[in-house]
Amino acid sequence: MTCGPAINGHRLLARLDAFAAIGATPAGGVNRPTLSVEDRKARALLANLGTARGFTVFQDAAANLFLKRASTDNDRPPLLIGSHLDSQPTGGRFDGALGTLAALEVLETLEDNGIVTAGPIELVAWTNEEGSRFSPGAFGSQVYAAGAFPAGWQDAVDSNGASLPDELAATLKALPEAAERPLGGPFTAYLELHIEQGPLLERQGALIGAVEGIQGTRWLEVTITGQVAHAGTTPLVDRRDAMAVAVAIIAQLQATVMPADVNARLTVGRLTLTPGAVNVIPGEVVFSIDLRHPSGAEIDRLETEITSMVSEAAESGGCQALVRRSMDVAPARFDERLIGIVEDMAKRRSFPCRRMFSGAFHDALFMARLGPAAMIFVPCRGGLSHNEAEYVEPHQIIAGAQVLCDATLEVAG
Amino acid sequence: MTCGPAINGHRLLARLDAFAAIGATPAGGVNRPTLSVEDRKARALLANLGTARGFTVFQDAAANLFLKRASTDNDRPPLLIGSHLDSQPTGGRFDGALGTLAALEVLETLEDNGIVTAGPIELVAWTNEEGSRFSPGAFGSQVYAAGAFPAGWQDAVDSNGASLPDELAATLKALPEAAERPLGGPFTAYLELHIEQGPLLERQGALIGAVEGIQGTRWLEVTITGQVAHAGTTPLVDRRDAMAVAVAIIAQLQATVMPADVNARLTVGRLTLTPGAVNVIPGEVVFSIDLRHPSGAEIDRLETEITSMVSEAAESGGCQALVRRSMDVAPARFDERLIGIVEDMAKRRSFPCRRMFSGAFHDALFMARLGPAAMIFVPCRGGLSHNEAEYVEPHQIIAGAQVLCDATLEVAG
Repeated sequence: MTCGPAINGHRLLARLDAFAAIGATPAGGVNRPTLSVEDRKARALLANLGTARGFTVFQDAAANLFLKRASTDNDRPPLLIGSHLDSQPTGGRFDGALGTLAALEVLETLEDNGIVTAGPIELVAWTNEEGSRFSPGAFGSQVYAAGAFPAGWQDAVDSNGASLPDELAATLKALPEAAERPLGGPFTAYLELHIEQGPLLERQGALIGAVEGIQGTRWLEVTITGQVAHAGTTPLVDRRDAMAVAVAIIAQLQATVMPADVNARLTVGRLTLTPGAVNVIPGEVVFSIDLRHPSGAEIDRLETEITSMVSEAAESGGCQALVRRSMDVAPARFDERLIGIVEDMAKRRSFPCRRMFSGAFHDALFMARLGPAAMIFVPCRGGLSHNEAEYVEPHQIIAGAQVLCDATLEVAG
Repeated sequence: MTCGPAINGHRLLARLDAFAAIGATPAGGVNRPTLSVEDRKARALLANLGTARGFTVFQDAAANLFLKRASTDNDRPPLLIGSHLDSQPTGGRFDGALGTLAALEVLETLEDNGIVTAGPIELVAWTNEEGSRFSPGAFGSQVYAAGAFPAGWQDAVDSNGASLPDELAATLKALPEAAERPLGGPFTAYLELHIEQGPLLERQGALIGAVEGIQGTRWLEVTITGQVAHAGTTPLVDRRDAMAVAVAIIAQLQATVMPADVNARLTVGRLTLTPGAVNVIPGEVVFSIDLRHPSGAEIDRLETEITSMVSEAAESGGCQALVRRSMDVAPARFDERLIGIVEDMAKRRSFPCRRMFSGAFHDALFMARLGPAAMIFVPCRGGLSHNEAEYVEPHQIIAGAQVLCDATLEVAG
């Protein structure tokens, strides 16, 4: 087996530094909200770097940004590679930027080596993957996949009152050199390099994760209604304590769901009590359940189990209960051929590789519904992400980009 | 055994109506915050009613209001009877008003019957028992008991920015006919009639509660510190989930403390999670524990047990824990002779009576530290209080006031 061309690791690391300077935070992280002035600077820099190498720059109505490298037959659907450039408010240097700049490195490596591909290869930088400035996240890839904007998207405003349509229009206008293109369109495959944002690769000493898919996520909102009463005068037998019921439910879930299934994830990240006074028995408790599993059938089974556990606990505590779904994203399975290519490319370079599921959302989730897609993960220190201390070793960065480059060439044929 | 003079039930019920009109809410409750314009109206009405019957009106620097009925020897320390006139924002017609107006009814009944007592009897209406406008509650009785204002009291402001010293001064000024008297002073005994604010008397068909004391209350604030992490990417083994630890602790406390001891009360009325996002494992959870028991030693034992349970649970969940006391009020034991008198008086009238502890605070808690004190409870419908729907049957009101009158005469000798 022969290996493809080696990427230029120094160039890639320098690019990561240059982009990390746009919206840099004092603590070494990045604050580059989607469609912000900083995001526009990062887009402009990416477009300039692409133009300098002769790539064509496009953007669609969702401000998804494309750099197209020409091929023998430019009318063929492209092979898409990329990620996103926006960050969390106190985000790290690698989340999104790594995949986007590694894709640029792939295009430049092909250029450096004079490699001509049969069909075009395009870098894509998706708009608003994070969703922290405007909800929902993975906005650009969802709009691309649907070929249309979702109902009500014009109403989204950020915490300062800036509107999504205004910020989108200003961002598009800030890059007049980019040619407009329609939303969506066919593609031969989609490949995305990303940091794991979890601890598994690091713990197992793996350098590359060949991502098999993305867990399904279902959010449940549980409301327990009891009766407000005086903490001092109300004996146990007279209590209809919404908090005692909620706690019994959550404790049981924590003790059963994850211990029974290593692939299950259950998190209670929000809980509010009413009225919320130290000396008042709560009359209402509302809490969230974030439930994830690679299997949609298992998520269904768990929801059924949770719903019946909630109503039993509520009844035995003299309370009423309501469980409603507040979000539901089905699991995505990536393309088996692409996963195999990622594994093979890692093997050729002797990079320790493991198959794994992604616990986090990515733009690839929505792309996988349209066509063949896969992801490549690299470790991040301590599994830390969405954090200014997010860190990836230089050799891990270079290994990930190399596998992206090799896989891209393998898929492009 | 002979009974003392019968009180005038019609007059008492009419007085309750008249005071309930001051700060009346559309839902039939009362909103008469301490030291407010409505509170001043209620004080003025009480002073006028007292003056009309020849009682002397005093107020001290804490705006505690006294109506003194003269006796053979006016220099003797008085027998104090009373309660408070302020209410919760959505309070009921009886909490405080019943005990104050029943005390007025006692003084008027003595007057109607030309009864001369050896020492003076004084009605007292304590300032700010509720504590909902200005913290802390039982302010007037605490200042009376200490003979001084607590440090920092001048800094208290209500939710509209009005200051306690300003509102106190304006309230004192609004009743110029009241003579000033120094804080505190000796008294022979203190008797207070109040609604139970709990369900026990009603459930047992009792008309009178001979209150033996007031439960001790200790507030603990528990802080669990774990690590913020991604709900999707973090497997169980890597979680330091502050919420899972908090919930395990609370569930264990709910399952053990009250079921094991009918006299114990444990309530978790507040809980906050940080950062509080559906898809983020909480890094910090802070929750309150309101712990009550008639025995101070038992409260100590429970606190020790809770503290060690908390640190074990935190350790096994990879978290840190901190338990701190945020309030501690020792139990009060009322005077055995006075409790016996209340029981005897109920028995003479053939009112079903039971001994009980108070689950709620009262001004009597602080008076019991200074001298002989006791309380008389009457039932309230469904145990409901601090609620506009608070309700006491007319025959229960009259029975309570009658026992207060009989006990007052018995103590006065």
